Amino acid sequence: MNATLFPELTTSVIDAMKDAANPRLREIMTVLVRHLHDVIRETRLTEGEWAAAIEFLTATGGICSSTRQEFILLSDTLGVSMLVDAVNHDGGEAVTPSTVFGPFYSGEQDELPAGASILKRPEAGEPTLVSGLILDDSGTPIEGALIEVWQTAPCGLYDVQDHEQPDGHLRGSFRSAADGSYSFETVLPVSYPIPDDGPVGKMLRALGRHPNRPAHIHFMISAPGYRRLVTHIFVAGDDYLASDAVFGVKPDLIVHPTAHEDGMAIAYDFRLAGA
Amino acid sequence: MNATLFPELTTSVIDAMKDAANPRLREIMTVLVRHLHDVIRETRLTEGEWAAAIEFLTATGGICSSTRQEFILLSDTLGVSMLVDAVNHDGGEAVTPSTVFGPFYSGEQDELPAGASILKRPEAGEPTLVSGLILDDSGTPIEGALIEVWQTAPCGLYDVQDHEQPDGHLRGSFRSAADGSYSFETVLPVSYPIPDDGPVGKMLRALGRHPNRPAHIHFMISAPGYRRLVTHIFVAGDDYLASDAVFGVKPDLIVHPTAHEDGMAIAYDFRLAGA
Repeated sequence: MNATLFPELTTSVIDAMKDAANPRLREIMTVLVRHLHDVIRETRLTEGEWAAAIEFLTATGGICSSTRQEFILLSDTLGVSMLVDAVNHDGGEAVTPSTVFGPFYSGEQDELPAGASILKRPEAGEPTLVSGLILDDSGTPIEGALIEVWQTAPCGLYDVQDHEQPDGHLRGSFRSAADGSYSFETVLPVSYPIPDDGPVGKMLRALGRHPNRPAHIHFMISAPGYRRLVTHIFVAGDDYLASDAVFGVKPDLIVHPTAHEDGMAIAYDFRLAGA
Repeated sequence: MNATLFPELTTSVIDAMKDAANPRLREIMTVLVRHLHDVIRETRLTEGEWAAAIEFLTATGGICSSTRQEFILLSDTLGVSMLVDAVNHDGGEAVTPSTVFGPFYSGEQDELPAGASILKRPEAGEPTLVSGLILDDSGTPIEGALIEVWQTAPCGLYDVQDHEQPDGHLRGSFRSAADGSYSFETVLPVSYPIPDDGPVGKMLRALGRHPNRPAHIHFMISAPGYRRLVTHIFVAGDDYLASDAVFGVKPDLIVHPTAHEDGMAIAYDFRLAGA
């Protein structure tokens, strides 16, 4: 649009990187500088707007802590995380789609036996049995895959956001059996707002956007010889499936819970791509 | 290049802003999202590279304080600040070019009489008289313009970076006289590295770039009815004039100091654009 506005400045910045030791870093920074400069040109960004951007980034950095990653939240809410996911995991029809990692993984948990509950205290939510198979892209069961799961409590917060929850509440690690099966007990997940008391929440309000994510359970599944799968399962019928604040929903990840004993059951088979 | 890679994701993020109350914010964020997404597409950024970017931004935020603005430094070293300056101050041939504000302005200082020194302690640098006129774009003198100046000590640090310097050392505010004249005593400025012990310094090293700025004195000149001018004067002959770490040098801002009494003299007239 204004491609010819001060092109020599962009050229100078790119030329200054000619001695970069790492050619990939040079490539990435060249593309970044070109696009960043085009943002300034196309918007004719004012100095006040630039100052507001500096202030926003500074505030975003200022709220980060060991339990709060506001830059990941920013990346998630601008669709950047999902696009990084997309360009890296276009695994094709035969494997389970991936989705955002999010900022709430808190490291590997102690392994639990098949069928165990991931609750560390009782919750009022709907008891739910989650089960299925871990398969390769031809449908062959994978034994011994590590299945890590995490979700919020019915209050809409993860344990790391809520001092009242025991550490590791609603988190668990499991191994798939010889037939590829896994299962665990939990409560039905709920939709919840991402942390919106910081700069990202302020941005969403200014953009007329809500902060909610549809109900989901996070999965990270690893097995030797396979690409690690980071994904969620989403619950059908949720109000926010079409407007996830982080753009993470894919149709193949939506599950329909069914009635089961005293609660609900979710059945979902995961298919991993070869490494 | 990969414009058709997952275009629906970019569309979703842009559509989500449709209810933004401020149309200018919506415009800026639309342009930003489009270019940010194109960076991911064109580089096919890996998840490890994305994580490194998140880590870099978090560290950049983490080092910011009341006396350190690493995001401004990042903007400066990527040429973004100079481009914002350029798109906002294309004042034409008749006015003095502007350049980067930088992170080291520390607020308005007490006004000093014409000819006063901005040193608050003796320095070993070359004594230098800086003088000239404040003019409008037709060459008519402007009386009563506020002239704010700041520079590093001969050690290469600003007072706010160096606890050994008195507050306000090598900073001063002056008013132009009825004939438009201004003058003050200082020491000849030196080239110096921008703060390079943080994430931006690490980035410059990874890009094979040095952190140095050529010797300069900062000026901010304000007068009712005129556009505020933020600029520097640079000293001719400096080693870094062609490779300023923040891309701030413009030929019209380079001055040639001359011998004067026991030291040097710099003469420079500033021409302001009408508001």
